[in-house]
Amino acid sequence: MPQQQTTRLEKDLLGTLEVPMEAYYGIQTLRAVQNFHLSGVVLSHYPKLVIALAMVKQAAADANCELRHLPKDKHRAIVQACERIIGGEFHEQFVVDMIQGGAGTSTNMNANEVIANIALESLGHAKGDYQHLHPNNHVNMAQSTNDAYPTAIRVGLLLGHDSLLNRLSGLIDALKDKASTFAHILKMGRTQLQDAVPMTLGQEFHAFATTLGEDLQHLKMLAPTLLTEVNLGGTAIGTGINADPNYQKLAVQRLAAISGHPLVPAADLIEATSDMGAFVLFSGMLKRLAVKLSKICNDLRLLSSGPRTGINEINLPPRQPGSSIMPGKVNPVIPEAVNQVAFEVIGNDLALTLAAEGGQLQLNVMEPLIAYKIFDSIGLLSRAMDMLRSLCIEGITANEAHCRELVENSIGLVTALNPWIGYENSTRIAKLALETGRGVLELVREENLLDEATLADILRPEHMTAPRLLPL
Amino acid sequence: MPQQQTTRLEKDLLGTLEVPMEAYYGIQTLRAVQNFHLSGVVLSHYPKLVIALAMVKQAAADANCELRHLPKDKHRAIVQACERIIGGEFHEQFVVDMIQGGAGTSTNMNANEVIANIALESLGHAKGDYQHLHPNNHVNMAQSTNDAYPTAIRVGLLLGHDSLLNRLSGLIDALKDKASTFAHILKMGRTQLQDAVPMTLGQEFHAFATTLGEDLQHLKMLAPTLLTEVNLGGTAIGTGINADPNYQKLAVQRLAAISGHPLVPAADLIEATSDMGAFVLFSGMLKRLAVKLSKICNDLRLLSSGPRTGINEINLPPRQPGSSIMPGKVNPVIPEAVNQVAFEVIGNDLALTLAAEGGQLQLNVMEPLIAYKIFDSIGLLSRAMDMLRSLCIEGITANEAHCRELVENSIGLVTALNPWIGYENSTRIAKLALETGRGVLELVREENLLDEATLADILRPEHMTAPRLLPL
Amino acid sequence: MPQQQTTRLEKDLLGTLEVPMEAYYGIQTLRAVQNFHLSGVVLSHYPKLVIALAMVKQAAADANCELRHLPKDKHRAIVQACERIIGGEFHEQFVVDMIQGGAGTSTNMNANEVIANIALESLGHAKGDYQHLHPNNHVNMAQSTNDAYPTAIRVGLLLGHDSLLNRLSGLIDALKDKASTFAHILKMGRTQLQDAVPMTLGQEFHAFATTLGEDLQHLKMLAPTLLTEVNLGGTAIGTGINADPNYQKLAVQRLAAISGHPLVPAADLIEATSDMGAFVLFSGMLKRLAVKLSKICNDLRLLSSGPRTGINEINLPPRQPGSSIMPGKVNPVIPEAVNQVAFEVIGNDLALTLAAEGGQLQLNVMEPLIAYKIFDSIGLLSRAMDMLRSLCIEGITANEAHCRELVENSIGLVTALNPWIGYENSTRIAKLALETGRGVLELVREENLLDEATLADILRPEHMTAPRLLPL
Amino acid sequence: MPQQQTTRLEKDLLGTLEVPMEAYYGIQTLRAVQNFHLSGVVLSHYPKLVIALAMVKQAAADANCELRHLPKDKHRAIVQACERIIGGEFHEQFVVDMIQGGAGTSTNMNANEVIANIALESLGHAKGDYQHLHPNNHVNMAQSTNDAYPTAIRVGLLLGHDSLLNRLSGLIDALKDKASTFAHILKMGRTQLQDAVPMTLGQEFHAFATTLGEDLQHLKMLAPTLLTEVNLGGTAIGTGINADPNYQKLAVQRLAAISGHPLVPAADLIEATSDMGAFVLFSGMLKRLAVKLSKICNDLRLLSSGPRTGINEINLPPRQPGSSIMPGKVNPVIPEAVNQVAFEVIGNDLALTLAAEGGQLQLNVMEPLIAYKIFDSIGLLSRAMDMLRSLCIEGITANEAHCRELVENSIGLVTALNPWIGYENSTRIAKLALETGRGVLELVREENLLDEATLADILRPEHMTAPRLLPL
Repeated sequence: MPQQQTTRLEKDLLGTLEVPMEAYYGIQTLRAVQNFHLSGVVLSHYPKLVIALAMVKQAAADANCELRHLPKDKHRAIVQACERIIGGEFHEQFVVDMIQGGAGTSTNMNANEVIANIALESLGHAKGDYQHLHPNNHVNMAQSTNDAYPTAIRVGLLLGHDSLLNRLSGLIDALKDKASTFAHILKMGRTQLQDAVPMTLGQEFHAFATTLGEDLQHLKMLAPTLLTEVNLGGTAIGTGINADPNYQKLAVQRLAAISGHPLVPAADLIEATSDMGAFVLFSGMLKRLAVKLSKICNDLRLLSSGPRTGINEINLPPRQPGSSIMPGKVNPVIPEAVNQVAFEVIGNDLALTLAAEGGQLQLNVMEPLIAYKIFDSIGLLSRAMDMLRSLCIEGITANEAHCRELVENSIGLVTALNPWIGYENSTRIAKLALETGRGVLELVREENLLDEATLADILRPEHMTAPRLLPL
Repeated sequence: MPQQQTTRLEKDLLGTLEVPMEAYYGIQTLRAVQNFHLSGVVLSHYPKLVIALAMVKQAAADANCELRHLPKDKHRAIVQACERIIGGEFHEQFVVDMIQGGAGTSTNMNANEVIANIALESLGHAKGDYQHLHPNNHVNMAQSTNDAYPTAIRVGLLLGHDSLLNRLSGLIDALKDKASTFAHILKMGRTQLQDAVPMTLGQEFHAFATTLGEDLQHLKMLAPTLLTEVNLGGTAIGTGINADPNYQKLAVQRLAAISGHPLVPAADLIEATSDMGAFVLFSGMLKRLAVKLSKICNDLRLLSSGPRTGINEINLPPRQPGSSIMPGKVNPVIPEAVNQVAFEVIGNDLALTLAAEGGQLQLNVMEPLIAYKIFDSIGLLSRAMDMLRSLCIEGITANEAHCRELVENSIGLVTALNPWIGYENSTRIAKLALETGRGVLELVREENLLDEATLADILRPEHMTAPRLLPL
Repeated sequence: MPQQQTTRLEKDLLGTLEVPMEAYYGIQTLRAVQNFHLSGVVLSHYPKLVIALAMVKQAAADANCELRHLPKDKHRAIVQACERIIGGEFHEQFVVDMIQGGAGTSTNMNANEVIANIALESLGHAKGDYQHLHPNNHVNMAQSTNDAYPTAIRVGLLLGHDSLLNRLSGLIDALKDKASTFAHILKMGRTQLQDAVPMTLGQEFHAFATTLGEDLQHLKMLAPTLLTEVNLGGTAIGTGINADPNYQKLAVQRLAAISGHPLVPAADLIEATSDMGAFVLFSGMLKRLAVKLSKICNDLRLLSSGPRTGINEINLPPRQPGSSIMPGKVNPVIPEAVNQVAFEVIGNDLALTLAAEGGQLQLNVMEPLIAYKIFDSIGLLSRAMDMLRSLCIEGITANEAHCRELVENSIGLVTALNPWIGYENSTRIAKLALETGRGVLELVREENLLDEATLADILRPEHMTAPRLLPL
Repeated sequence: MPQQQTTRLEKDLLGTLEVPMEAYYGIQTLRAVQNFHLSGVVLSHYPKLVIALAMVKQAAADANCELRHLPKDKHRAIVQACERIIGGEFHEQFVVDMIQGGAGTSTNMNANEVIANIALESLGHAKGDYQHLHPNNHVNMAQSTNDAYPTAIRVGLLLGHDSLLNRLSGLIDALKDKASTFAHILKMGRTQLQDAVPMTLGQEFHAFATTLGEDLQHLKMLAPTLLTEVNLGGTAIGTGINADPNYQKLAVQRLAAISGHPLVPAADLIEATSDMGAFVLFSGMLKRLAVKLSKICNDLRLLSSGPRTGINEINLPPRQPGSSIMPGKVNPVIPEAVNQVAFEVIGNDLALTLAAEGGQLQLNVMEPLIAYKIFDSIGLLSRAMDMLRSLCIEGITANEAHCRELVENSIGLVTALNPWIGYENSTRIAKLALETGRGVLELVREENLLDEATLADILRPEHMTAPRLLPL
């Protein structure tokens, strides 16, 4: 009785390899899998990138068919294969490590081979029967890794961009909600960790929302600016050698239509083939977001420090028991995790920067790392922002009485009295308070420097937390 | 006969100090000088920052005078003092180290004290007679370091921005000139340092110009977006405590007029007081420029490598003798220096990022480092781009014959013949060439695969370096 | 008919959760899984860390039993559970994300819970019946996350250290082999990418081996210096509160015995609880290794550049087809991948540095990121070095004739003639060669400056590539 | 009447230049000054580097004279010139920018030219009369920049190493003093910014001293390991071409004697010529020190936060007035400045890392940046540590009563009672205290859970801050 075959033999310039029979990828993908076992993170980990690869292949096939280089039946089979990948099928066939030599050739060939084999089956052929439809000759027609791959990265980033913006937007909204809930809570502002002057807790949270809102705007603006110019059609080095003069325009138009993003051909294809500037700036913007998130989380941890020997102005929702050895301890675990994500994103930005600097002549062979790190940063930030919003911000409560007590007990309060009692009195009262441990208001009352009505008026939150017409 | 006094006694909250009689700065500046001996780089090293500080002080004085908080004679004296500093006088009086604690208080006080003492002298008083015009009460009126200092940094960056753009623009023009000079020179393109397909040397230099041109556009756009929103009027923490409700608008309008830049008040002053996002992104953009310059210089060094055992396609102008031990050696010293500047700028960006992340609650006390590193990066890049343009790019010559020889000797040429002689012939010829060390054209001619007319047509530079309608 | 239960109910300070019936982890692990979905890399990804956690738990149980705080039957069950984990079982139960808030509490509790449930089953109880053996009270007895977790990280690094050293050592040996194979091949040395003076290809590969050999020595030395001091016994903050005075010594002795590494108690437990210096320096050393590997790979790519328009002194073994559009192209994919790994490791070092700087007061809550990044860097470097050795270095061949041709054609050869023909003749010949494109030797012969015997003697490789007694 | 000449004409391979008559440097230095106007920091800024250059030149002259290549009178003149530079003279003649192309050639030539001209004058010749004593032929005899320059950097670092160690040592001593002064002050320890368990303020400062003490040990050990192996004698690329076979040994011996450091020849001179690993690790160690200093300063700022709305356990000595708008405000300016220095050092480490990675083939042309950044980091850290010691640590005082009050008011105190009142009581009391705002001790007393004698015993500082035999 014949054994069922479990592999098929495929061939390339370097020889032959046994490819698992059920695999839609082929020999070149297999070589890459054998060569690169590095990050352990494979292409399928980033579905938007896989989808974008399929969109590029579909757009190229459309253009090649229209220009009569690709027969209609092959075109139809390729397009159907691409559509299935775009629809979420076959992603597990994208098995190459994100870190790879060859400037993305292995990623490109993984896409070419998977699409070819899906198409072959739909045409009634066996996987691997490439004489009927070839990964290079047909799926990769008129393309080089050097134009298809960077184009796919850009499209992949655009496809995922709304999701990033939505997470950020959701976090901003949660902060704004808190800003409005806490609008009436008077508290001390602090500069250099020293008592400064009063503000409201609402103002503090509003500032968090504002600073992230600026990033939302920048990210919205930057993505189209940086990512919609693609080098598809440049082939090997941007000269477009061996490509039909009409191909570039058609292919980019099709890709724009398929992806739903307003893609345009890069003005200088030589430059666009090797230039990584768009990714450097995009990652720089992600780094900026990480820095801001880290600063906000540092503040949340400071403001919730205590409960007895810290600042204790706010309470973060408890998410897990703290120490077993210290009963009742609850730790700010969510912001702590966000800090670490931020550090990781800053590290990613550095790795990407080094990779961008490492380009040489007509290509940047470090592009796989660039793609990996930028998708990784986006994923990390997205998940961290969701976590921060849902597991922390939305559940924050304020210790209103303690906040006010700190204001009233503060020496910084004297700044608000300054215009009424004069700088000399203010300084004297401040020093006396510091030396004796007594309160500023107590001392002012004791000396009858201000009547109660005036004092009450000065101390109204809305008067201490905004500019105000002063007595002349 | 009485000794001439060489110092005057000044006083602050912490006590008294002897200030040199000729100094226009005062006790607080002196304390800062004694406290901070760190980078060795002092404020006067950055004239645009000094000028911006004076502009902020002038704008505040104008607003305070209009609102009747500052008497006219004092206003006039302050304004005149500011104008002299803006005109370039007294810069040597800005003596505080760029790295300082206190979130810029020492910088702000250095400005306040110098302006006060210049004003005092113009009013006929001795330096230090602050009862007539006080550094804090009058020069710093309605300001806090926390709004005056970040505002001055932004204005300082805007004042110097044209100069940065001009240097970059000059470099781009020099690259474009070379692109046009070298437009006819055919050479091999290289990907992954391996022979790829032909291109022109003009295309290569044009790509350098294009990639830097994108940064020129981004820098032009980013500066107004990031830097024109100022927090002047926010006072201590952005609540504007103790400031006249009309002050902010007036002061910012005056500062816009004085500086010639379209400044506007920040929408959320609490946020604007502590947020360093604008500097993070600006520095991120400078880092991107550094990465590109470094990549270009790497390429220049590769292309000029040799003369005999390297690529040797271009000659950089010799700028200094190379080795004494190796007669006739001339090294690419200018691009090498640019690489190092680029690394320094990337390091600066990291220091700035760390500083931005280190902000806490209502202030970022690391702002002095942020200001220092961003001004430093701008200066370094400006000088490096000038050096690169004038001492390197403008003098580059091409080894045209050698470039063409490399193309003709290259196996990559077969790619251009591919559409005419077919893939099978191409591959066979390529292998044969590699094994025998012979040329592709030689072998094609030997086998009469193409007639001379067709070959000549295919090999015309304009045909090999652009898309072309192929034989079907 | 009753449905089979698929979950069990567990309880902690925050309430109850349904834990999957088959899970050996418990409620606190489950909370962490729900809280932290960030890196996607979970504890089980690092087997040495999982094993080290079990070793710490076993050592603590041993000490607690000896001090009569832990009953013998519970001790026996815990020890058996730990041994099974050390043997490789149950690793899939370590499910917490490597990035987590809580300073490692979730990791520690994951270990406590899995061990408790394995032990419970071995004692005949159901998972979750913690009244018989409790994750905190028994498995975590006398420990805090703050001492158990950093101790486990150190032990985990020590357990994996030999493997890292072996990979590095293997790579060095492969380079030495090539150095010996290439010992006789004369080639031009290059400084600043310009032709310098002759050397052998063997010397070049020997230098690669030497530079990595230095790192092997440093890594061998550093690991014991940095990692054998553990803070086990410090409990919550290093004061050892609530721990038996004899516990620390016993526990560390046991851990040393179990792990086979010469662990000692840290001298200052307060310091050891929060200090991350050991990891910073260890990572700094890994960064140095990454920098060297990157430099070597840059060199390999330069030396194999071509084949026709580059340096082409060596051939890297082909590992996958290059471009489909460019027949016969083979790219240096293995060194390219190593470069990217190096950049990733440098980025990891930065993330770790930021985390180390972010410690506050008695703890560094960013320790999970530190552990993650250091294990990640080690894994990346190990795999990259193996790949580089087996898929690249071992298969490198030299183009001996081309190497010699470059030497003979080089103007740098004149340096070797300098002591015989004098500096004036040398300079004249060098200039003439450069201008005419002719060879130095050809010109020397033409002018009869040296007889053939002398020339042959000078040009012997061993004479040009080492110091030599010169004619006076 | 003849005008006095203000310049002299000097000549090199590229032509002639007018050198100022009074300058001891010559034409090649002048070219470098004209080429490189980048950092603005010139060689003379680092006296140890200047001295080390002179020592290298002296050692080489000694060896060359002993080997009879250098005549005695020239030798004597060169040695005297070197000794004067070593003694501190002529440093202002070292005018080249620290950032320079040419891999240090300009630095080396600056030294060669200054020494030659001093020597010429001592021999009765005019500056520039190089036929009598030549910068290259005599001062640079048997050297290349590629061996002389890296050797000088190493010697320069060794010469300054004691000073760095002394500053660090002084800081450690100051911290130990405080540890002893504060040994009796009970305070709350904090983990994750949350109240943990008691400790003493002395323990906290002792941990600061311990962690820095570890760096002192590492730095002491690392410097000889990393810096004493020099490549002097390798000439151009490490092959020692054109050098006397006995030269290397003699020159290094002389350099060891002159510098007072146990220098030895590098084992592999090819490797030693291009390898930057020693500097990468040295800088990595400086980065680690920076991280620790930053963490300590973060803690000092946290512990002194307040005075009313922060932690306020310690007082930093006031160094300058805080805000004018907020009377009485004193800020932690010294630690803030140290933080910024730390960030700068981390940025420097990155720039240096990039430079180290940028080496190619037989040389690292980025070495000038490496030298610059490492000397800069050492200087910054040295000055910052001195500042921190003298202007901050030595003047710190403790708020002892407030520290104890925080302990007594803390819920964390319940951890110490745990072994006596049991876990259930502890948890109940902890919750009750948190809900009611009352004190743990108050509640324990109210419930008569412990008698006063036991309570007093438990609460003795020495009992709460160390392991203790517990009741069974």
